[in-house]
Amino acid sequence: PGERPARRLLSRLHPADIAELVPLLTPDEVAELWRTLLELRLAARTLRELDGDARERVLEQLADEQVSTVIGRLSAHDAVDLLESLDPERRQRLLDGLDAARAAQLSNLLRYGPATAGGLMDPEVPRFFADETVAATLERVRTLAEERRLFYLYVMDEREHLLGIVSLWQLVSAAPERRLREILSGEVVTVRADTPQEEVAQVFQRYDLLMMPVVDADGRLAGAIHVDDVLDVVEASATEDLYRLANLDVHEDLATAPARSVRLRLPWLLINLATASLAAFVVSLFQETIAKYVILAVFMPIVAGMGGNAGTQTLTLMVRGIALGEMDLRRSGVVIARQTLVGFMNGLLTGLALGLAALAWERNAVLSGVLMFAQTLNLTVAGFFGALVPVALKQMRLDPALGSSIFVTTATDVGGFLSFLGTSTLLLSILSP
Amino acid sequence: PGERPARRLLSRLHPADIAELVPLLTPDEVAELWRTLLELRLAARTLRELDGDARERVLEQLADEQVSTVIGRLSAHDAVDLLESLDPERRQRLLDGLDAARAAQLSNLLRYGPATAGGLMDPEVPRFFADETVAATLERVRTLAEERRLFYLYVMDEREHLLGIVSLWQLVSAAPERRLREILSGEVVTVRADTPQEEVAQVFQRYDLLMMPVVDADGRLAGAIHVDDVLDVVEASATEDLYRLANLDVHEDLATAPARSVRLRLPWLLINLATASLAAFVVSLFQETIAKYVILAVFMPIVAGMGGNAGTQTLTLMVRGIALGEMDLRRSGVVIARQTLVGFMNGLLTGLALGLAALAWERNAVLSGVLMFAQTLNLTVAGFFGALVPVALKQMRLDPALGSSIFVTTATDVGGFLSFLGTSTLLLSILSP
Repeated sequence: PGERPARRLLSRLHPADIAELVPLLTPDEVAELWRTLLELRLAARTLRELDGDARERVLEQLADEQVSTVIGRLSAHDAVDLLESLDPERRQRLLDGLDAARAAQLSNLLRYGPATAGGLMDPEVPRFFADETVAATLERVRTLAEERRLFYLYVMDEREHLLGIVSLWQLVSAAPERRLREILSGEVVTVRADTPQEEVAQVFQRYDLLMMPVVDADGRLAGAIHVDDVLDVVEASATEDLYRLANLDVHEDLATAPARSVRLRLPWLLINLATASLAAFVVSLFQETIAKYVILAVFMPIVAGMGGNAGTQTLTLMVRGIALGEMDLRRSGVVIARQTLVGFMNGLLTGLALGLAALAWERNAVLSGVLMFAQTLNLTVAGFFGALVPVALKQMRLDPALGSSIFVTTATDVGGFLSFLGTSTLLLSILSP
Repeated sequence: PGERPARRLLSRLHPADIAELVPLLTPDEVAELWRTLLELRLAARTLRELDGDARERVLEQLADEQVSTVIGRLSAHDAVDLLESLDPERRQRLLDGLDAARAAQLSNLLRYGPATAGGLMDPEVPRFFADETVAATLERVRTLAEERRLFYLYVMDEREHLLGIVSLWQLVSAAPERRLREILSGEVVTVRADTPQEEVAQVFQRYDLLMMPVVDADGRLAGAIHVDDVLDVVEASATEDLYRLANLDVHEDLATAPARSVRLRLPWLLINLATASLAAFVVSLFQETIAKYVILAVFMPIVAGMGGNAGTQTLTLMVRGIALGEMDLRRSGVVIARQTLVGFMNGLLTGLALGLAALAWERNAVLSGVLMFAQTLNLTVAGFFGALVPVALKQMRLDPALGSSIFVTTATDVGGFLSFLGTSTLLLSILSP
């Protein structure tokens, strides 16, 4: 009794809301809930919304075939997340229970990681051998399903070492009795399975490829990457740069439920609160000066805003340049020097504009001079740190965009306030009316 | 005499530096300079660096064949820029002088604009007719150069209306005497030539396409778009979003000369200076309050920094969501309401953290209360404007990212300072010790 209303209720709830109820239930209730969720096809999405601990407890209570059903409905990415949280023995048992193609894909993702050539490739690429004739190969190509979109055939020796490629056009144009060995082209662009996916995308773009063979450490064919998957990588990695520069979690999008958005953004906002407190601390050192000459507080938002804007310009240029492979990290000293120079020159020019505007407003030549000096220093700092931070993160093998905008803004805030309020304090006797 | 040293000097100068000399020369000197630059293969790059007026004057003095040589060395994009600055008659004369493929490409770019399917397509796609036999078609496919990478054949009727496609696999598997009409597949995804390139990229991704036919307004085949060009579009449009959010000109990259970087960034910095002055003006309204209670100035950077960060988070999410087609503009009211709600909740939570930290520091419960209130309002404003500005720009048919970060930062600065300093002024009698 009461089971049907419960079903109806569940089917109306958002998976994120169901997930919040799970920790409140007894093991028996969880088991029953999950049976219902599987029937309602809500299990996969609910599992995705569960936090690590709660998820592990649920997975322990589910039978293997129930977990298999869930894995079948998850995206490859989420399925790998789930499999990684299980002990190796159960993981292998579950993989054995999946259909072969899905199991191979997930095994590759588990072995090479999702952001690599190995995680991106289709391991099911048909193998052709050097001694096959054109006629026999054409016959095989005809029987392979069209959806394989086989416009390049990978030709290998008996030990599965990749020898070269034959295009479908070459095959169609060649005499039927010739062997693949005689018509193959040995100049093939390949990648190792552990190559990061951003590098894979750069290779595709440089050579205008449609598909590319992936080889293992011994030069054996491991699979092939198709251009449509590379398209997704290019888009995803650009979105990631954008998100990281804005301190957003890559899992958020416009469809994310508000409660989850709040949770995903809050950590970054709290970090920003902490670093902004550093800027506030710098200002607090100059309270006496501000008390004597309050107009300084009026110009503080300009100092902070301009430094932040100039820092973001440099930072964005650097992050994108590094991502697109425009940046030779051995020449990073030159690049940082150039960006600092650009910051200095723009500081000088906008400082001039700011100084003149302040002169018209406040009619205090000393204040204008201080603003010009502080603005120049501020934008020089912005150029320097905007260029340094992503390079330093990259050299520490971290993502050059991750958290970098908070670093840079803190540097420009601190540098800007120090130079503006510090100089003002030194010149206070002639500054204050 | 002296000609050889001049040549040597020119070959060492950067094209951007040569361009700066051009306005200083007499017409005769310009003509001679250009002869030398053409020999040194520096003419195209120098022309690219010239500003509009100077460029027009140079072009007037050059003979048609000299301009043709330059066009041959420019990228398609720059060549179109150049052609557009000429009068229609000379433009047509120059196009007639180019080789046919290049002329067709540039004509399309001129007609449809570079950011459309028409500008992106290869107009030279081979045409196949419905009554041709498989055998005859295979013969033609063999003679077409492999670099055409013809894996889909476009089949049309006598009036060049697209009827369907035949894949190379179908062709290889079909009986030689059958006609294309009998084996073609009529379900073809096509785009009109005036479709924006971002939409083209979305269609490629949705259907995992390798190439797609482009049709004109009458349904006649106009050309085909290849996936490698779409890859460039996806990357370029992501970079553009990133650049516009950071107020960078899309023509800048890490290789840009410092002087040009300064020139490209300066306009945005000056706009930012103007809008930051608005925030400064708001602060100036509360000088009396700050003079009486200077600690308010200490918390100003936190108010501004948090609002800016939260606004950028929302803005970035919106811009990317709109670019990726996640956003239904008819439902924009709901999205704006949700983002405002997220801002409100994060404002409440970070306001609590800020209030408690301030209480520990200043031991003033009223100040803490004011900070909590102002922070909540600040992040609500950030959520609202971060969502509203890109939607409004999009509905005005402008780029949703263009200048939006400056708008949003101004809104959060003004809103944050108004609420923080305004409330402080109202409560000054109980706030100030």
